Amino acid sequence: MAILIDRIGELTTNDPEAGRLRDAAIVLDGTRVAWVGPSRDAPAADERLDVEGRAVLPGWVDSHTHLVFAGDRTAEFEARMSGNPYTAGGIAVTVAATRAASDEHLAANLRKHVEEARRQGTTCLETKTGYGLSVVDEVRSARIAAEVVDEVTFLGAHLVPPGTDAESYVDLVCGEMLDAVKGLVRWVDVFCEEGAFDEAQSERVLLAAAERGLSVRVHGNQLGPGPGVQLAVRHDAASVDHCTYLTDADVDALASSDTVATLLPACDLSTRQPLAPARRLLDAGATVALATNANPGSSYTTSMAFCVATAVLQMRMSVEEAVWAATAGGARALRRTDVGFIRPGARACLQVLDAPSVTHLAYRPGVPLTRAIVLNGVHRMFNHKPPR
Amino acid sequence: MAILIDRIGELTTNDPEAGRLRDAAIVLDGTRVAWVGPSRDAPAADERLDVEGRAVLPGWVDSHTHLVFAGDRTAEFEARMSGNPYTAGGIAVTVAATRAASDEHLAANLRKHVEEARRQGTTCLETKTGYGLSVVDEVRSARIAAEVVDEVTFLGAHLVPPGTDAESYVDLVCGEMLDAVKGLVRWVDVFCEEGAFDEAQSERVLLAAAERGLSVRVHGNQLGPGPGVQLAVRHDAASVDHCTYLTDADVDALASSDTVATLLPACDLSTRQPLAPARRLLDAGATVALATNANPGSSYTTSMAFCVATAVLQMRMSVEEAVWAATAGGARALRRTDVGFIRPGARACLQVLDAPSVTHLAYRPGVPLTRAIVLNGVHRMFNHKPPR
Ligand SMILES: [Zn+2]
Ligand SMILES: [Zn+2]
Repeated sequence: MAILIDRIGELTTNDPEAGRLRDAAIVLDGTRVAWVGPSRDAPAADERLDVEGRAVLPGWVDSHTHLVFAGDRTAEFEARMSGNPYTAGGIAVTVAATRAASDEHLAANLRKHVEEARRQGTTCLETKTGYGLSVVDEVRSARIAAEVVDEVTFLGAHLVPPGTDAESYVDLVCGEMLDAVKGLVRWVDVFCEEGAFDEAQSERVLLAAAERGLSVRVHGNQLGPGPGVQLAVRHDAASVDHCTYLTDADVDALASSDTVATLLPACDLSTRQPLAPARRLLDAGATVALATNANPGSSYTTSMAFCVATAVLQMRMSVEEAVWAATAGGARALRRTDVGFIRPGARACLQVLDAPSVTHLAYRPGVPLTRAIVLNGVHRMFNHKPPR
Repeated sequence: MAILIDRIGELTTNDPEAGRLRDAAIVLDGTRVAWVGPSRDAPAADERLDVEGRAVLPGWVDSHTHLVFAGDRTAEFEARMSGNPYTAGGIAVTVAATRAASDEHLAANLRKHVEEARRQGTTCLETKTGYGLSVVDEVRSARIAAEVVDEVTFLGAHLVPPGTDAESYVDLVCGEMLDAVKGLVRWVDVFCEEGAFDEAQSERVLLAAAERGLSVRVHGNQLGPGPGVQLAVRHDAASVDHCTYLTDADVDALASSDTVATLLPACDLSTRQPLAPARRLLDAGATVALATNANPGSSYTTSMAFCVATAVLQMRMSVEEAVWAATAGGARALRRTDVGFIRPGARACLQVLDAPSVTHLAYRPGVPLTRAIVLNGVHRMFNHKPPR
């Protein structure tokens, strides 16, 4: 069945030549985009959706979340806001709660957060394991994630479980654990950071992934300058995430690589770190993505719009750059070409804003602007007028 | 009719002795709060609303908005984000559009934004004139505002209309214009700033208001240090708003006065100014309110939750301080004792969060958490689950 989305006031396709189109229309055929062009040239379709001049853009591609979890870290957040610095240690609290939770609870909690993200315009979402940290718990997390989301990442190397020797834990991750999850995940990730895994340990994880034909991504340079970026580039990681502290050599390495720099501004704010140097990366020619890093510790938001607003207001990204980074950039960070764009052949995944322009995402920070999404061709309205 | 709101997981009353109550209940009788206490002691009521452990707090009191306007300033915002500084000049664009708009358009636009604010938890909202700047247009703005909101402020002294001599315009504001609007407004405000009105001109406006028995508030110290704060304190203004640039003497003057320092963090971010020095004010003992400054130029958001999140994440206010400032603080800035609190006798105006704690307002930035409001005793649910 073909659906015509008509009278689009401003259409962001992410086609570098098109820019923002005015008075545009789209035809969706099943789960794919079939046609994009001016409203007046739109072909007939089975159904017509009149968006009355609103802005349409690709659905957000949130390429970095940790949503297979149980438990709560409100108290840790409050403590941090009272001046206690963030360290990776709080992760252990979530690990204990996640291990203790039932499959049903973990799946329901994941679905609840994915639904919350969708209602805010996210139509493609990656999520990670990493609160299991044992073979059985990591496999369980990967299985639950794979049931709910498109993109699953194995992050056994999130933290050395308390009471365990780091080297033997890396042995486990690189051997038995990776073999047990490999059929369930597309990606392998490692938290390369002081207090988590050092360069040599991280490299072992990336090599073990490659041996099994899995693609890699890296958490790096979050809490200070470190080897994460260089390691990611060297191993052709799809993305290195955080990038809060970068040397000029890191920026140069990213600029001359296919590794995306994924910035997580909500995490930087929630941990009272500096915001990542988006401008330096963009000016050097690096590819930048924006993602939420949604997790109960360092960044408990599913709001890509908040990340976009922060990027524009505080990181000096232009609206175009920020919107691209949160859609096409996220797709690049997941090495996907079927999402993050609105063009014939792409997945029918998009959002309609209650605003005439994507600029309103930064001009109107905090206001929920997602009016509707189309997810794989299925249209869902939000922001219904209330009963009175 | 009495409504029991039961099983409140965390209740913020703003009663300084109560703190956050757990397992609480409230009884509303008509438009007023009748009873507050532990769930187990709750009296019977005609209707019972089970909030299933969610957090309940007073509705936001947004004590500073400019929502009687027409037109759009998206292009100005984009220009500013590309590096052009904010000046008061852009106001003239809105003045021209507002003058050209019909009464119906202005009222509908105001209602749309008030509705948007309510859906985000605001149950008391002040708005200002100030885009008319002629007797007829200011009267019209005041009349439309008074039809829609509780608290109306006359801001004829927003900007000297282009082509007009400042002193003769102040004569007009202090005479004919004030006489024409005085039956429609409770407050008189003046934009005491370089490029708007100087100290002597601002003082004339405040004196003319007092002569007519109207209370006053001041826009001051937004774009640089200036006389606004001292002037406001000297004239016992209910509030001085912005306070982005404060000397130690300004902080001291506020701390020993009944004038509230109303901070507008969304405006500071949207104009790429520093965030106002909340910590200095609080540590000195000044009373702080948070408001949106919703207007199409310098701060086009209705999201009090965004202001609260910014205050906690970036201005080092605690969650308690920020929530108080956005509720009881706003009430203080409007010299109201019937809103901003949940206690017997207060107006039945409150919000229910889709969260167990007010901490989530900062812990989950950008996520729309207002599930329901009660507005003068009338209950409205938002965040309905979508049809599929
Ligand atoms: Zn992460
Ligand atoms: Zn203002």
